[in-house]
Amino acid sequence: MEKWDGNEGTSAFHMPEWMIQFADQKQEFNKRPTKIGRRSLSRSISQSSTDSYSSAASYTDSSDDETSPRDKQQKNSKGSSDFCVKNIKQAEFGRREIEIAEQEMPALMALRKRAQGEKPLAGAKIVGCTHITAQTAVLMETLGALGAQCRWAACNIYSTLNEVAAALAESGFPVFAWKGESEDDFWWCIDRCVNVEGWQPNMILDDGGDLTHWIYKKYPNMFKKIKGIVEESVTGVHRLYQLSKAGKLCVPAMNVNDSVTKQKFDNLYCCRESILDGLKRTTDMMFGGKQVVVCGYGEVGKGCCAALKAMGSIVYVTEIDPICALQACMDGFRLVKLNEVIRQVDIVITCTGNKNVVTREHLDRMKNSCIVCNMGHSNTEIDVASLRTPELTWERVRSQVDHVIWPDGKRIVLLAEGRLLNLSCSTVPTFVLSITATTQALALIELYNAPEGRYKQDVYLLPKKMDEYVASLHLPTFDAHLTELTDEQAKYLGLNKNGPFKPNYYRY
Amino acid sequence: MEKWDGNEGTSAFHMPEWMIQFADQKQEFNKRPTKIGRRSLSRSISQSSTDSYSSAASYTDSSDDETSPRDKQQKNSKGSSDFCVKNIKQAEFGRREIEIAEQEMPALMALRKRAQGEKPLAGAKIVGCTHITAQTAVLMETLGALGAQCRWAACNIYSTLNEVAAALAESGFPVFAWKGESEDDFWWCIDRCVNVEGWQPNMILDDGGDLTHWIYKKYPNMFKKIKGIVEESVTGVHRLYQLSKAGKLCVPAMNVNDSVTKQKFDNLYCCRESILDGLKRTTDMMFGGKQVVVCGYGEVGKGCCAALKAMGSIVYVTEIDPICALQACMDGFRLVKLNEVIRQVDIVITCTGNKNVVTREHLDRMKNSCIVCNMGHSNTEIDVASLRTPELTWERVRSQVDHVIWPDGKRIVLLAEGRLLNLSCSTVPTFVLSITATTQALALIELYNAPEGRYKQDVYLLPKKMDEYVASLHLPTFDAHLTELTDEQAKYLGLNKNGPFKPNYYRY
Amino acid sequence: MEKWDGNEGTSAFHMPEWMIQFADQKQEFNKRPTKIGRRSLSRSISQSSTDSYSSAASYTDSSDDETSPRDKQQKNSKGSSDFCVKNIKQAEFGRREIEIAEQEMPALMALRKRAQGEKPLAGAKIVGCTHITAQTAVLMETLGALGAQCRWAACNIYSTLNEVAAALAESGFPVFAWKGESEDDFWWCIDRCVNVEGWQPNMILDDGGDLTHWIYKKYPNMFKKIKGIVEESVTGVHRLYQLSKAGKLCVPAMNVNDSVTKQKFDNLYCCRESILDGLKRTTDMMFGGKQVVVCGYGEVGKGCCAALKAMGSIVYVTEIDPICALQACMDGFRLVKLNEVIRQVDIVITCTGNKNVVTREHLDRMKNSCIVCNMGHSNTEIDVASLRTPELTWERVRSQVDHVIWPDGKRIVLLAEGRLLNLSCSTVPTFVLSITATTQALALIELYNAPEGRYKQDVYLLPKKMDEYVASLHLPTFDAHLTELTDEQAKYLGLNKNGPFKPNYYRY
Amino acid sequence: MEKWDGNEGTSAFHMPEWMIQFADQKQEFNKRPTKIGRRSLSRSISQSSTDSYSSAASYTDSSDDETSPRDKQQKNSKGSSDFCVKNIKQAEFGRREIEIAEQEMPALMALRKRAQGEKPLAGAKIVGCTHITAQTAVLMETLGALGAQCRWAACNIYSTLNEVAAALAESGFPVFAWKGESEDDFWWCIDRCVNVEGWQPNMILDDGGDLTHWIYKKYPNMFKKIKGIVEESVTGVHRLYQLSKAGKLCVPAMNVNDSVTKQKFDNLYCCRESILDGLKRTTDMMFGGKQVVVCGYGEVGKGCCAALKAMGSIVYVTEIDPICALQACMDGFRLVKLNEVIRQVDIVITCTGNKNVVTREHLDRMKNSCIVCNMGHSNTEIDVASLRTPELTWERVRSQVDHVIWPDGKRIVLLAEGRLLNLSCSTVPTFVLSITATTQALALIELYNAPEGRYKQDVYLLPKKMDEYVASLHLPTFDAHLTELTDEQAKYLGLNKNGPFKPNYYRY
Repeated sequence: MEKWDGNEGTSAFHMPEWMIQFADQKQEFNKRPTKIGRRSLSRSISQSSTDSYSSAASYTDSSDDETSPRDKQQKNSKGSSDFCVKNIKQAEFGRREIEIAEQEMPALMALRKRAQGEKPLAGAKIVGCTHITAQTAVLMETLGALGAQCRWAACNIYSTLNEVAAALAESGFPVFAWKGESEDDFWWCIDRCVNVEGWQPNMILDDGGDLTHWIYKKYPNMFKKIKGIVEESVTGVHRLYQLSKAGKLCVPAMNVNDSVTKQKFDNLYCCRESILDGLKRTTDMMFGGKQVVVCGYGEVGKGCCAALKAMGSIVYVTEIDPICALQACMDGFRLVKLNEVIRQVDIVITCTGNKNVVTREHLDRMKNSCIVCNMGHSNTEIDVASLRTPELTWERVRSQVDHVIWPDGKRIVLLAEGRLLNLSCSTVPTFVLSITATTQALALIELYNAPEGRYKQDVYLLPKKMDEYVASLHLPTFDAHLTELTDEQAKYLGLNKNGPFKPNYYRY
Repeated sequence: MEKWDGNEGTSAFHMPEWMIQFADQKQEFNKRPTKIGRRSLSRSISQSSTDSYSSAASYTDSSDDETSPRDKQQKNSKGSSDFCVKNIKQAEFGRREIEIAEQEMPALMALRKRAQGEKPLAGAKIVGCTHITAQTAVLMETLGALGAQCRWAACNIYSTLNEVAAALAESGFPVFAWKGESEDDFWWCIDRCVNVEGWQPNMILDDGGDLTHWIYKKYPNMFKKIKGIVEESVTGVHRLYQLSKAGKLCVPAMNVNDSVTKQKFDNLYCCRESILDGLKRTTDMMFGGKQVVVCGYGEVGKGCCAALKAMGSIVYVTEIDPICALQACMDGFRLVKLNEVIRQVDIVITCTGNKNVVTREHLDRMKNSCIVCNMGHSNTEIDVASLRTPELTWERVRSQVDHVIWPDGKRIVLLAEGRLLNLSCSTVPTFVLSITATTQALALIELYNAPEGRYKQDVYLLPKKMDEYVASLHLPTFDAHLTELTDEQAKYLGLNKNGPFKPNYYRY
Repeated sequence: MEKWDGNEGTSAFHMPEWMIQFADQKQEFNKRPTKIGRRSLSRSISQSSTDSYSSAASYTDSSDDETSPRDKQQKNSKGSSDFCVKNIKQAEFGRREIEIAEQEMPALMALRKRAQGEKPLAGAKIVGCTHITAQTAVLMETLGALGAQCRWAACNIYSTLNEVAAALAESGFPVFAWKGESEDDFWWCIDRCVNVEGWQPNMILDDGGDLTHWIYKKYPNMFKKIKGIVEESVTGVHRLYQLSKAGKLCVPAMNVNDSVTKQKFDNLYCCRESILDGLKRTTDMMFGGKQVVVCGYGEVGKGCCAALKAMGSIVYVTEIDPICALQACMDGFRLVKLNEVIRQVDIVITCTGNKNVVTREHLDRMKNSCIVCNMGHSNTEIDVASLRTPELTWERVRSQVDHVIWPDGKRIVLLAEGRLLNLSCSTVPTFVLSITATTQALALIELYNAPEGRYKQDVYLLPKKMDEYVASLHLPTFDAHLTELTDEQAKYLGLNKNGPFKPNYYRY
Repeated sequence: MEKWDGNEGTSAFHMPEWMIQFADQKQEFNKRPTKIGRRSLSRSISQSSTDSYSSAASYTDSSDDETSPRDKQQKNSKGSSDFCVKNIKQAEFGRREIEIAEQEMPALMALRKRAQGEKPLAGAKIVGCTHITAQTAVLMETLGALGAQCRWAACNIYSTLNEVAAALAESGFPVFAWKGESEDDFWWCIDRCVNVEGWQPNMILDDGGDLTHWIYKKYPNMFKKIKGIVEESVTGVHRLYQLSKAGKLCVPAMNVNDSVTKQKFDNLYCCRESILDGLKRTTDMMFGGKQVVVCGYGEVGKGCCAALKAMGSIVYVTEIDPICALQACMDGFRLVKLNEVIRQVDIVITCTGNKNVVTREHLDRMKNSCIVCNMGHSNTEIDVASLRTPELTWERVRSQVDHVIWPDGKRIVLLAEGRLLNLSCSTVPTFVLSITATTQALALIELYNAPEGRYKQDVYLLPKKMDEYVASLHLPTFDAHLTELTDEQAKYLGLNKNGPFKPNYYRY
């Protein structure tokens, strides 16, 4: 089994500051576990759980109903009331969205078909905390088809599609989520998934680490029966490595975030498309001939640069890592420091995962009409706070689009207030989500069925063979035909004909 | 330190067949160490040592002199005769080529400048076995400037540039190499580097593993004083992993072949250019509108596909690995089995590292004028042997270009007889060789200076920080300006401001 | 002066059928000029005037007010009521949109600045009939700054931005237009622009030919004072050539549609961006790996193909013209007949200007989830009517997105009911509109100021020097620096240093 | 028929200086028609006739024979001696090259097949003056198959492939050409084609205008029987327009140079490939990351820019024409003045058709190792003469590669001494030559068969229908399938189903 033990723990990787902050928060959190004040919560909740999320994703209008779902009495058509959603009557709309999503998630549908014979998740009791979208619904219903019982909460207070949550509730899933939860609602929903009589989870599917965190703090004994955690996000994975380093991780965990299918597909190809989409939907700008600086040339930066170059933009790149920098050079981008080009560019895009990459000083020097946006991590990359000063005027010109106006009349066009452009202002293609969802499903199956001793109390990457399996399930979408090794070729290469086909260090 | 121990030794990677063959050869070799028959040698010599090499690389005509260098008495202008080259009088021509190469190898020149202060290789006695080209000469003279003494042989019987060898001999390097060595000459040259009175090597720089092999077989005691081996080639690295698995590796070894700078730069970017160059120089074909199938979508295949697509070819890809296959799909290539397109394509290019990817059956079905060539591994990918049958006529139409003619008049255009197109029919840009040569130099420095215990008797990848250093030394060529982390940012990311900047599993 | 007389009148170009239809309509129209029945109008109105138009372009909600503007009494702040718009109170919102547009229309702003000295349109009385958008407003206010008086109607019953119309009315322009006009409203508005006491137009700016048509039919004597017509659309230009051939054109006309800046910039570069935008906004699909067939490889097709290929789609092309077909081949696209690929493609895009390019038979053979859309001409390319049969179910899943469902459950995703995708589902970048608007302004200036005899009663292309001037006015946007010929170079080339720089037949 | 009369004669196009020079030369030439001094000839010969030509095109060594072909007695195997070539014995080698070329010239082979029924050139007596290459041979033998008698001379003193000339002579063509003619030889060969007893040409196929010039000066009466001239080169076409303007053109002439198939295919696609090829063969440089400035963004510049951008270079463009400049911007290139980037670029490429685009001042400011080459017109673009000064050292490092060394050691790498890179240092793909050769053949057929009065004594472009026919003959190479209009569609568009499909002003 491929274990990347200590990757994060080598001398090269000290504990990042935001992890330490998080540790502090948890301590604070520990002090008042019963009476959660708004302020403390706003620090202990994971940042990702409050990121804004494209409102374009909502298909029905629910603005007419201001009653909190917690105060409503709702039943689905089978009489169950073990859920809490905005409006169970929207179920039909949600079902249609789920059906549309199913058409683009062939791998999960293939798993369902296979599950008609065997139920690899029979007996599994999965508690989940993810975005509640049509794609998640397809995942949940697939887990159900594979034999699992599920209870689900939202990992983000804005991202729930109420119709989809209703559809899931209608078809019998205990779902506790709605768009626009308060932070108190947020934890209440998670608690309703975990703390229920006669049901104890044995698997965790988390996105951001809040669910895991909650169980650690409130029901640590539950881990005795839990077979494993599957975590998707950067943030959640960091939390897990931290627990592992501290010796506090008490079950095996799968790091889905760093799987090759996530990194090389989701980050690269998805951002290649969503940078264009996000910019167009917000600004209707023309890409041809525009000068753009992209900060960071990781997978996200590579995707953004490739797309903009292809559309006729002139792209500059900034980097701190000389290897990525050399790649940018060979790919045909001028590698500059931000200061060198800040006066001339039409667009600034951050993809670094770092903080304060674009400072007030940079913003002061940008030319009129310059567009500034973030495709990287959370909302730290652009120092938006520095723009909240009296001499600058903010003008909201469209949803997610602010003009920040300098005293001399210069306007900067700030998108999504510096939060993630592609989450806020574009949609994510179902196909990409399908890759990640399939990886999650296989990780659950692997952890649930692994023989004793295969996984210890540590953080693992998915075995390469499973990565390959996820990929192979998505090939039929493209009518792609894989070549099989002959016996003679397999022997020559020293490979099993069914894979894995590459050493672990292969970079793709 | 980043050690990838066991990567090759996991259950996923059985010993490939050709390794086993090699093991057999060695045994045969052991039986008759003194009287080396032509036939046994032709099997014990590494395949790479007899690969053809572009004759375009020769700048002076030496065809007039048929005397073997071993039978000549030559002295350089300082009176030394501790070398064996074709013609010491060609030194001046070679020096010009070296000077031209120096202009494109800024990193090595930077190391030399730095070496004016300290000599990190003072006391090092390096025995080397590589291609003898202008670029190697720049490496050797850099090693000299860093304090090392060197003795050098050629790793390929065809690839030596006689003028360059002469120039090195003239400037005092004991070089034993000429173009067109016999196999007996080949081993004699290696022996003259190793087996010399009053000098014992303490470092090995190898390309293909023949030098290492020779010392193992003939002078195993030498390893007591040897601090390490630096190996560049796929073949040589496999040999080292094999020794390691067998518990027979008695010094630390650096695997330069799998360093990120080699894989992601040499393989990807270099092949992106050399596929076009190789096809043009041999066939003068037009790329626009041509249908091409590329077998294999690793780094080499990715480079070939990108270049041909950019030039207006329609490219199909074959793959065995579903992850690479999915990348090909997302990059815009139809993924097919070779059989599906073999009748329609104008060009077939192999980049798999596998054997018999293009079989006689495929060749029988190709259309008239189809071009077939190999960018992958050695000469195994196209089953050229299957074309040596009586009913087919071979016609050599240009250097490295054969028409194979079927009874019905159909012609297949076979390039370089199925050997590596880019080695045989194009040149390799100096800049790429600079990256590899710098990596070799740093690997030698690292192994030579490493404190006791840092490296054991195993195969290592270069520490990431050194990969990053190699990259950073090449940025000035592009007038590229790296951004530096602020203290605050470094703390936020948990990184040292000087790197390394990525976890080991980062894929670039 | 560059006159392309007879280009449309050569034997190669017979009168197209739709022109003949139009001629018939006009006759019908002639029969009942006073009492216009709904039905006759619906045929005599130009097709473009009823094309749907992206509702995304509306920024304020006016659904609350159902009163017809014709029945309202409105005055602007200066007391004028010589206008008819939806709601004069929206003027402020509209002004903001106009100001934003001004920032991306540098060429018109440059003309305004130049107009501070001379007023080349002093005395001009321009009647206009175009889309009423922020960009048109910038054009109108520029014409005003150049000295012209203007009266304006909408050329499309859906496309008016009510806020912008209000802003224009507020600043004193007699504008007669609102979103959602009836056909009777449409002609009423045009009439209000033309038929007003004490004012007679001497210039016409038309888009679609409806205004010109109206004057021809109702006020033919007006042409005695009219100095010329500037027409932008394919349809309107065809009408003018038809009039010219019939000897009925009684003033010079400028064909702006076929100017190089329109054809090579608007069609190529704009569609390169809007095909991606339109597909994303409607379907959220992923482009990577998708198989697409683009019907037609003119400028629009070239733009669509380039963009989709760049985003990783696999693109097939159909063509009737062997020259464009050969371009497609050399650009790297498989040239096929639609039938050959219709079963396998994920997207079908029409860009031919032809009718029934996608037939019911094609639609029957498409695979499930295939997306069908039109980027070409009007709504003729896809035989949408053939889908209005009882066995097929239509399901509107989003705005502009219909699922057409076959009895076996197969769904085709039809966008914008086969009307123009980029008009219906994406926005057009201001910069592109700036090029066209500048060309219109210059054409008006040229016709208005041309000495007697320079232009006869015929259809002209803009003099090349003006095309070049339009282009040069847009270069500062890109911080682009044009090189000037030295005297010696100009003499060598036989060119004037200020252009024109190319022969008329130059293709760019 | 599409006649572009006066395109060159409009006020926009004054007579270029070099035309005037040429007119002067002709006068000088007239003064001494019998005794041609070397010096006068060197001015009266067309520049293109002395351009260097890739020596790579020679496949057999003829350096051993220094006898002038004019002094040799040679007969072909049928006993004819009506030819003058280097060595008739090389015919077999030449025949092989011709056969290889036939495989890539499908359109001419298709014409031959069609000629089995009718002989459209029966009775035609064609005198030709072109490069003598394998491709020309295929054209000549096609003209023969179509019924024509031909006599042929070379249009360039260096470009003749002696083997091919021998093969043509062997198969009965009166060919008068060899590589390395003196200027006296040059005119002697032309004269031997024209001035022969019992044979008078009735058609002229010229490349550069020298043949036409010779007949005008020496045998003006011949034009009485000549039905037309087909001219391919820029230079020759200019000469013809000049004659036309002067009222001295006494037969119709076809301008093949400006046909769409030449401009849009030969110039764009061919240069897209040959810029890479030419740079690689001369310098082995790496394209990735290199900074390049391309002077001129016409078809040639567009091809160069596209290729280099695709290979990862960073490309800057200079332009004098604002329309082409705006295209460069939209295509993603920074538009600069040469001075702005001259210090930083690694490569300078000229494609302007202008003179002294790169001056000594620019050369003085270039950085060390900068490569300078010309892809445009003749050898005027780079002021090479300015480098022939005492303080600069020239060093020939390879064929066609000079290092020009400044006193401070800076080296500029000058390719082909500023002559055309693609003619000098790369080969031209047969497929491109096939398009031009087919156009020439069709132009000959059209002029020879045109009914009286269709063409007057003027310069014509090929009818569009023939352009389309040329294109259609090349589609099978790509297995490309053209769509046919239905009757209904043709009627709708007002087009004949067989074309022409576009108005004359269509730009492609």
